Amino acid sequence: MKPYFKLKSRNQLQNDILNHFNPLPAKKMSLDDALGRVVAENVISPEDLPPFSRSTMDGFAVNAVDTFGASESQPALFEVVGEVAMGKSPEGIEIQPGQAARIWTGGELPSGSNAVVMVEYTQAIDENTIEVSRSVAPLENVIEAGEDVGKGQKVLDSGAVLRAQELGILAGLGITSVKAHPAPRVAIISTGDELVPADTTPPRGKIRDINSTTLSALSRLAGANPVNMGIITDNRGGLSEACRKALELPADVVLVSGGSSVGVRDFTLDAFKAVKDAKILAHGVSVKPGKPTILAEACGRALVGLPGHVASAAVVFLLFVYPLLKRMQGFTDARHLGLPCVNARISRNYPSRPGREEYLRVRLVEDESGLVAEPVFGKSGLIYPLSQADGLLVIPRDSEGLYANETAEVLLLP
Amino acid sequence: MKPYFKLKSRNQLQNDILNHFNPLPAKKMSLDDALGRVVAENVISPEDLPPFSRSTMDGFAVNAVDTFGASESQPALFEVVGEVAMGKSPEGIEIQPGQAARIWTGGELPSGSNAVVMVEYTQAIDENTIEVSRSVAPLENVIEAGEDVGKGQKVLDSGAVLRAQELGILAGLGITSVKAHPAPRVAIISTGDELVPADTTPPRGKIRDINSTTLSALSRLAGANPVNMGIITDNRGGLSEACRKALELPADVVLVSGGSSVGVRDFTLDAFKAVKDAKILAHGVSVKPGKPTILAEACGRALVGLPGHVASAAVVFLLFVYPLLKRMQGFTDARHLGLPCVNARISRNYPSRPGREEYLRVRLVEDESGLVAEPVFGKSGLIYPLSQADGLLVIPRDSEGLYANETAEVLLLP
Repeated sequence: MKPYFKLKSRNQLQNDILNHFNPLPAKKMSLDDALGRVVAENVISPEDLPPFSRSTMDGFAVNAVDTFGASESQPALFEVVGEVAMGKSPEGIEIQPGQAARIWTGGELPSGSNAVVMVEYTQAIDENTIEVSRSVAPLENVIEAGEDVGKGQKVLDSGAVLRAQELGILAGLGITSVKAHPAPRVAIISTGDELVPADTTPPRGKIRDINSTTLSALSRLAGANPVNMGIITDNRGGLSEACRKALELPADVVLVSGGSSVGVRDFTLDAFKAVKDAKILAHGVSVKPGKPTILAEACGRALVGLPGHVASAAVVFLLFVYPLLKRMQGFTDARHLGLPCVNARISRNYPSRPGREEYLRVRLVEDESGLVAEPVFGKSGLIYPLSQADGLLVIPRDSEGLYANETAEVLLLP
Repeated sequence: MKPYFKLKSRNQLQNDILNHFNPLPAKKMSLDDALGRVVAENVISPEDLPPFSRSTMDGFAVNAVDTFGASESQPALFEVVGEVAMGKSPEGIEIQPGQAARIWTGGELPSGSNAVVMVEYTQAIDENTIEVSRSVAPLENVIEAGEDVGKGQKVLDSGAVLRAQELGILAGLGITSVKAHPAPRVAIISTGDELVPADTTPPRGKIRDINSTTLSALSRLAGANPVNMGIITDNRGGLSEACRKALELPADVVLVSGGSSVGVRDFTLDAFKAVKDAKILAHGVSVKPGKPTILAEACGRALVGLPGHVASAAVVFLLFVYPLLKRMQGFTDARHLGLPCVNARISRNYPSRPGREEYLRVRLVEDESGLVAEPVFGKSGLIYPLSQADGLLVIPRDSEGLYANETAEVLLLP
C-alpha cells in the first residue's frame, strides 16, 4: 500500500480549483457558437439602436402639440402630406403645423413629427384630410433614436453570460461575432483490465465500460466537449502514454477513472507525475463516496483521477470537475460554478461517520410541508440507484448523521 | 382593421398546445444524441449487470463462514490457492474450506467464495498462507451478479428523461442506441420591409433583424434545432411561399415574427390559412405583451405567429412555443413543460389593467427576507431591457396591479 497524501476537504479542493485554473483564452466566435458562453470583453455599442425614431403603431406621424385639446366631440383636422413607405427613408416629407403623414409600425418618423396617433383614433374626411379624436403626448407611440441602446453605451460587461437576449442585442448592433471563453475539451480515459467498450460482448471476467458514457454526458451537461479516449489496461506505461496523447489533442482537462486509489494496481498518480511540469494538488479528499480523487495541474491544464466506481466517479465529477469546467468557461458567480441546490427534510434516520462529508443519493418528493429527500441505497459501484436519484443530500463533515425530518442541503443532479 | 377572433387566455392556448400537438415520432439514436431526450420505449435489461459477482476491494476471496471469530488476537489462517487475474475468468480456482484467492477490485469471485477480506486485514505468513484478523459477512465487499440490474428488469420507463446516469445504464447493458423523441426542427421567419440581416449595414429607414437571432437562441435553449429562413418583406405571396418552404424542410414548427396583428399590412394569418389543411387554433391571446399571437396546426405541425416587437416575441415564445417544443420532445411533466418559477416580492407599486395577464420583466435581487423583483421598464420593442431581466413577473388576469412588497410568481428566463 502506498500512502495517501493528507486528505483535503471539499472546500480546500474547490479552492485549489479556483486558485490553480483560469478561464480558457477567449476566442472570437459566431453568435450561434456563443450561446451560453461567457463574454470576455466589454461590448460598447458602435451606433444608436434604433438608428432613427420609429413608430410603434400603425397611424399618423404628427407634431404632438397640434393634437392638444382634440377629442371625439372636438376633433383636430390634419392635412395628410404623404406616407412613410416601410423600409424607406421619409426624406422629402417635412411635417408643418397641422400636417400629418401616414406611417406604419416600425416606420421612421419624418422630420417635424414627434409622436404617432394610432389609426384607431383617426377618421378620413377626404383624400388628404383626417380628423384626430385624441391628443397624444410628445414621443407617444415612438421609440426614439438610441432609446434601446445609445452609441457608445456599454451593452455587455466582460463576464456576462450570453443568453438569447444578449445575442439579440449584438445582432441588433450588427456585431455578428464576439470574444468569449470557449468550451473546454475533456479527454476521458477509463482504466481497468476488466473493461470492454459498451458495444462489445464481454468475455468471462470482463464487464462493459460505463464510466466513459456517464462522464462524457456529464461533461456535455457542464458545457464542455468530451473526447472519448477509450479503455487503458492497468499498466503504468499505457496510462502515461494515454495522458500524453490526451494533452496533445489538446485537452484542457484529462479525466482518468479508476486507478486513483493507493493499491498496487493504481497507476494514475504515477501517470500524472510523469506528465511534464505536472504538479499534484491533491490525492485523496474527505468526501464519501469519492475519497480516491487526484487533482494535478500541468501548464494550466487539469488532470483528474476519479474513482473507478461509477457513482463515486459521478459525485467527484459533480463536486470538482463541474466547477472546474465552469471556471474554465469563465463563469465566476457561485450560482454558475456549482450545482443548484434546495433544502429538503430527510425521510428517515441516516447514520454517518464524522471526519468526511457524505453525499447521499436521494429521490425528492413533495408533501404538504415541502420537499422530502428519500435515500436511494446502493453500493457506489452500482449505476442503477443513480438513475433513481434526483439529487445528492449533503451530510456535513462533523455530523454523525441525520435524524428523520432534519433539514439538509440537496444538490440537484443535472 | 380586420377583427381579432375572440382572445384566448394563456391557459386556453396552453391547453390547445397539449391537445393539438403530439410528441414527434421516436427514432433510434446513439447514446450521444440521446442525452436530454425522452425515451419512447420501456427498456428491459437483456442481461445481468454485473454479469458475475465482483469484488469491490483489493483483498482475498473467501467463504465468509471461515472468517467467523477471527480477530487481531485470534487471526484465522487461510491457504492461498491462487490469484484471480484481472479481466480473466477465475476458472480452475475452487475455494475449499480454509482457502482463499487473491483478488482485485472488480475481479470475478471464484467458485466457493462469497465475500472478500480487504488486504488491510490480512497478513502474509508465507508464500501460500495468510492470517485474517477480522471476520466478514457473506457478500461483504462483493457486488453480486445482477445486483445492479437483473436480467429482465425494466430499467427505463417510456417517458423517462435520459440523463448521464440513464445513458450509463444503457452502456453497461450493451445497449448503444435507444428509441427517443428527436429534437424538433424550428423554421424561423422574420417579416418586415424595414428589416435587413444582422450582418448588413441598414440603409436609411431600415434596421437589423433582431428576432431571428433571439428566437433561434431560445429554440436551442428549449432543446430544438432552429433553421433561419431569413427575412420576408410584407407581402402575402412571399410569406405563404416561405411557410411552404419551411414545411418542406420539413419543419415541425414554423415561427413567423411580425405581421400577426390585425393591421392592413399583417399577412401572417392569411399565410397560415393558405397552408394545406391548416386549422387556426387561436388569433389573439389576453396576455401583455403578446396579444397579437397566432397558433395554427397543419398535419401535426405548428405554425406560430409572434408579435414583431422583440420583447413581446420573447414572452410569447416562452409562454407558448417553449411548452410546444417540450411537448414535441415527449416531456410530460409540468416541471419540464414550463419555465422554472420562484416567488418574489415586487419592489414597488405596479398598476395593471384587468382582463389580461401581464408579464413584467424583472431583475431578481436577494435581501434578508428573500427574493425581491425589481421591474425593468422599457417598451416591448426594445431588446436591452430584456438583457437586464432575470425573469417575468406574472400579474394575474383579474388584478389591477400589485402593491410594493406583494408576493408574485416569477418565471425564470432561460
